[in-house]
Amino acid sequence: MFPRRAISSRRGFLFAAGSIVGVAGASRIARAETPKAPPGAVLYDVPADPTKEQGRPVADGSYGTRSQFETEVRMRYPTPNENTSWSLTPLDKSLGNITPSGLHFERHHGGIPTIDPAKHNLLIHGMVDQPMTFSMADIKRLPSVTRKHFIECSGNGLTEWNKPTMKTVQGTHGLLSTSEWTGVQFATFARETGLKVDAAWVLAEGADAAVMTRSIPMEKMLKDALIVYGQNGEALRPEQGYPLRLLLPGYEGNTHIKWLRRLQVSDKPFMTREETSKYTDLLGNGKARIFSLDMDAKSVITFPSGDMKLPGPGFYDITGLAWTGRGRIQSVDVSVDSGKTWYPARLESLAEPMCTVRFSFPWMWDGKTAVLQSRCTDETGYVQPTLKQLIAIRGDNGPFGSIYHLNAIQSWAVSEAGDVTNVHA
Amino acid sequence: MFPRRAISSRRGFLFAAGSIVGVAGASRIARAETPKAPPGAVLYDVPADPTKEQGRPVADGSYGTRSQFETEVRMRYPTPNENTSWSLTPLDKSLGNITPSGLHFERHHGGIPTIDPAKHNLLIHGMVDQPMTFSMADIKRLPSVTRKHFIECSGNGLTEWNKPTMKTVQGTHGLLSTSEWTGVQFATFARETGLKVDAAWVLAEGADAAVMTRSIPMEKMLKDALIVYGQNGEALRPEQGYPLRLLLPGYEGNTHIKWLRRLQVSDKPFMTREETSKYTDLLGNGKARIFSLDMDAKSVITFPSGDMKLPGPGFYDITGLAWTGRGRIQSVDVSVDSGKTWYPARLESLAEPMCTVRFSFPWMWDGKTAVLQSRCTDETGYVQPTLKQLIAIRGDNGPFGSIYHLNAIQSWAVSEAGDVTNVHA
Repeated sequence: MFPRRAISSRRGFLFAAGSIVGVAGASRIARAETPKAPPGAVLYDVPADPTKEQGRPVADGSYGTRSQFETEVRMRYPTPNENTSWSLTPLDKSLGNITPSGLHFERHHGGIPTIDPAKHNLLIHGMVDQPMTFSMADIKRLPSVTRKHFIECSGNGLTEWNKPTMKTVQGTHGLLSTSEWTGVQFATFARETGLKVDAAWVLAEGADAAVMTRSIPMEKMLKDALIVYGQNGEALRPEQGYPLRLLLPGYEGNTHIKWLRRLQVSDKPFMTREETSKYTDLLGNGKARIFSLDMDAKSVITFPSGDMKLPGPGFYDITGLAWTGRGRIQSVDVSVDSGKTWYPARLESLAEPMCTVRFSFPWMWDGKTAVLQSRCTDETGYVQPTLKQLIAIRGDNGPFGSIYHLNAIQSWAVSEAGDVTNVHA
Repeated sequence: MFPRRAISSRRGFLFAAGSIVGVAGASRIARAETPKAPPGAVLYDVPADPTKEQGRPVADGSYGTRSQFETEVRMRYPTPNENTSWSLTPLDKSLGNITPSGLHFERHHGGIPTIDPAKHNLLIHGMVDQPMTFSMADIKRLPSVTRKHFIECSGNGLTEWNKPTMKTVQGTHGLLSTSEWTGVQFATFARETGLKVDAAWVLAEGADAAVMTRSIPMEKMLKDALIVYGQNGEALRPEQGYPLRLLLPGYEGNTHIKWLRRLQVSDKPFMTREETSKYTDLLGNGKARIFSLDMDAKSVITFPSGDMKLPGPGFYDITGLAWTGRGRIQSVDVSVDSGKTWYPARLESLAEPMCTVRFSFPWMWDGKTAVLQSRCTDETGYVQPTLKQLIAIRGDNGPFGSIYHLNAIQSWAVSEAGDVTNVHA
């Protein structure tokens, strides 16, 4: 028997008007601009009453696609060179925790290569007892593990240091995606090749036109590095390194070398272009950080977020994502008054290490101006800073200075008309 | 410093030959027939050396697709009527836990309708205090949750009762898929509409040509039923009920009403066609079960599995999936000698309730004939039965009798030549 009183006492809370029969659609929440349908989408006729017409049959040999009414896409950042460009995940439309593989953000240094997996090998050499080459078939015979991790580009939010620039959360935070990755622990390979006693770093090299390379500490490689071939239950997508990628839980995105073809073991870092001229952080005191590999704890409200319009006062379920490169998210707080008051948010699920977790907070908007913020704490005790706190340490030295690792609290202003905008508050 | 001795002591274990430099590809594991590329796949030129040619640029407004070398697809079961048909997930290629949305199994009773979400509503009426209609926009304003659950058709394996029939694990077990689902708890809706004191059942109705209907106990609806609009981080796929589906964790698949448009609350079940002439189970004693809604604990080895060929003796990582409709999987055992000896398998991750969990077991094949089996136990203490044990209770009365809820242990025979076949053992 259902506890009848409990229902009645809550009824009408979520929708102030009580019954909403007949007002369907009145409370629609829309982005200011409707995105266009992606090219190539198959358009089926929409019957007036779908119960009166036979539906489409099951196709033999099918790989399904989205509904023709679903149109969110990745947005390319307008760089001068489209070959060394990036595209951003539409976080404003994100649901749950996993990013659909087709919407995983991209960052390429020499475009997306087309690689035949039957001809792709991984060479492991350098300070090992026995250099070895592994075909994809060899790699798939090794014991595998599956783990859910985020990847965030260290340049995520690079436009937002000095003033609010991008309109949407796709623009401010879209270089973040989460997948279930499947592959083989680097430690498994190390048991096959052996390691010399002074082995301390590993150079990872991609088979793309940039021959992208990064040096990774051996401690990290043996702790939790994965050589992955699977993403969300199927093969890696081409943009994510098909057929093989290095996955370094919690490390900045560029180190997760895609199209991985070579691991060279050494006693020191290789000081490649990507760790000297790029991916270093000039600080406020004029010194620079290198090998700033861990992604700091960060969170963002994805709904409501920039460029949305709230239809009117009433109930809104504020929701967003929190993540940290240093373990698990411990808690998330939400403020609707620009940080004067903070309330604990509900975490959707048990936070997994180096993985996003969705949070939510029930908000009854009174129709007055508001500034929505989220702030997370990770299991090390680190608290996500305000932009002012971050700039005090990192400096505010423009696009040629500290463009990476912006993890400050994001603010979304809500006007009396319900317009949501990106602000520094 | 890496423990050097531990490495050396294990080196050479996985590949008996030690170094495999130069033998890349020799250990490939192939299905007997190579599937064809799905129609419409974009084929890019494959450069001889991808580091010497600029790759494809990032497209603006993109939704990514698979590599042209990835070709697994759903297989339609050859029913006489393609409109009331089903297709099976290629579990032989499955990785991790999530099923890619494009490969989620399908079972339709009147084809796949095309529904405009702007015109779709959910009516809740019957024994409620206030009947209400919810638009999709209304539903998306309600507090949501995201949970990972399997869905299994109660007809999964219906061809396998009397003799081994399907060649592959896609054929024997492919009416099983797992997704991260996002939606609203039915309990949240019930707080809005209120429920009469005698409310005990809910009729769920789809907006497809079959107007598919099932009666669900109110206890289940209030415990964990979800009204879902999200699947794996984006909108439900059309074949999975776009824009709205009922999700009943652990219940047989046909009750998860797709294209959900109506919930009618009553004090008794509605005894629809799907719960009288269909989806009942004739037992060995001549009586029949109705409302056999919970899916029983079950497991299957997906690698190696039917129609594969092992290239030769050596190391193989046996892997598969286990699931139960009654909570969490507690343990999985593996046998390589037709059930004479059982060893504990490793569970890939903490088992979630009413969700698949991947297991693995390291096997050194000596080149002799073997029969591979897995057997799971769920948290209620229920142990997956042999086919003989199941038939002793359920009867072996052919395709018009007990075709549903086959959860017996699956056997894969390995010949000395390495051929893997579906057997009853």
